[in-house]
Amino acid sequence: MTDVRKRGMVAVVRHDGWRDEVAVEEPLEIRHAGRTLSITMRTPGDDDELAAGFLYAEGLVESAPDVGPGEELEANTVEVRSPLEREPALRSFTTTSACGVCGAGAIEDVRALARPAPPGPPMAGALLAALPDRMRQPTFARTGGLHAAALFDATGELLAVREDVGRHNAVDKLVGRRLLDGALPLHGLVVCVSGRLSFELVHKAVRAGAPILVGVGAPSSLAVELAGELGLTLCGFARGGRVNVYTGGERVAG
Amino acid sequence: MTDVRKRGMVAVVRHDGWRDEVAVEEPLEIRHAGRTLSITMRTPGDDDELAAGFLYAEGLVESAPDVGPGEELEANTVEVRSPLEREPALRSFTTTSACGVCGAGAIEDVRALARPAPPGPPMAGALLAALPDRMRQPTFARTGGLHAAALFDATGELLAVREDVGRHNAVDKLVGRRLLDGALPLHGLVVCVSGRLSFELVHKAVRAGAPILVGVGAPSSLAVELAGELGLTLCGFARGGRVNVYTGGERVAG
Repeated sequence: MTDVRKRGMVAVVRHDGWRDEVAVEEPLEIRHAGRTLSITMRTPGDDDELAAGFLYAEGLVESAPDVGPGEELEANTVEVRSPLEREPALRSFTTTSACGVCGAGAIEDVRALARPAPPGPPMAGALLAALPDRMRQPTFARTGGLHAAALFDATGELLAVREDVGRHNAVDKLVGRRLLDGALPLHGLVVCVSGRLSFELVHKAVRAGAPILVGVGAPSSLAVELAGELGLTLCGFARGGRVNVYTGGERVAG
Repeated sequence: MTDVRKRGMVAVVRHDGWRDEVAVEEPLEIRHAGRTLSITMRTPGDDDELAAGFLYAEGLVESAPDVGPGEELEANTVEVRSPLEREPALRSFTTTSACGVCGAGAIEDVRALARPAPPGPPMAGALLAALPDRMRQPTFARTGGLHAAALFDATGELLAVREDVGRHNAVDKLVGRRLLDGALPLHGLVVCVSGRLSFELVHKAVRAGAPILVGVGAPSSLAVELAGELGLTLCGFARGGRVNVYTGGERVAG
């Protein structure tokens, strides 16, 4: 038998006399006016941030929403009490992989929702390449099972970091915190993620007004195309002191 | 300016006199009787397999479906011509992260759809740990941007491998191929994935009747819980000649 005990973001697993720590994954339902807006698998904690960031990325709110536990204080449910800016479209039965914003129609949505950043800041390529090493990931170190998203200023100072089993959720939490603090757009700042660079991550960065997105992993073709079209500086394979610049090279010096 | 030219699963990116290859990511719409069943971001190729595997994982078909390009031969669309086994539920506005099967209600669905494997096969831990190195990933080698899923027999022989920007898609392609060939369930076989082990990957493996799921990365708490409940042998961190066994240790020798 396997025994799993959850404590916050981490669960302790025991099996055959052996013990390990893993990242907690649980469903979160985001509700509005008696309706389910989203069900996502996520790592618990910062649920308000996750909901706020999700609503913003989807174009359902433009300013900080009133979000919190539902009336019955159910675990794994966030209630949205503020009005929505637009009617959430029932897109499809279900979506997989890089979900949330997908499909040809949704690509048009992404263009409409984008908040492209003004020129700058100029940053040294070596500094961009060093950002992943500056992300502090306390839970990853214990479980190896979490993606991270971090916000840096143009000098490379770490402003915030969030973790989640889903990399899109980690970015939603990061952006959601800034939205709740009235601190959007992210002009002049850099978003850094621990994994690969999908179309959806480019969307979330551009929507939040970030000029630069850096990833430890590879970008997809659609990520590169969208970043190029919307003026985002997209950097991949940031490791070992090097970084590949796929779009927006005018912001990268050296 | 950035130039992106797609050739099958790989795109060539040119920017500032520099050239790189990235994995192609494009939306695929799966349609049935004039209705959208799913829109997913995926790497093109093997779309019939992806659609078949998706339909099977969702419990919408139990045997090989009739799938193919739509009447207008639109790119990025698969038409399902066979009847569905059950009515697809409109789950929610949108889902993110480990999507497809999520939410508390969906966890019940997963239990109902599971096809747990009989006991065995017994396999040496050292052999399980070596499986990721035996996956051939031609496109990953060029782009670094693709997840892989592979099927092995109990002697460690590679039977099939599929790649995709989404790891769930890679497993859907693998299972979809077997479904189209009338070669399900996967009793006695091992599914191996290049990344982390989510709840949804456990669902897809158990649904297809695989007794063992091996991943290069970490499992989540829900993946471990579900694997334990449904009798799947779940192995994570398969690298460097070692593997962690989280559930179903009775199938692992040594």
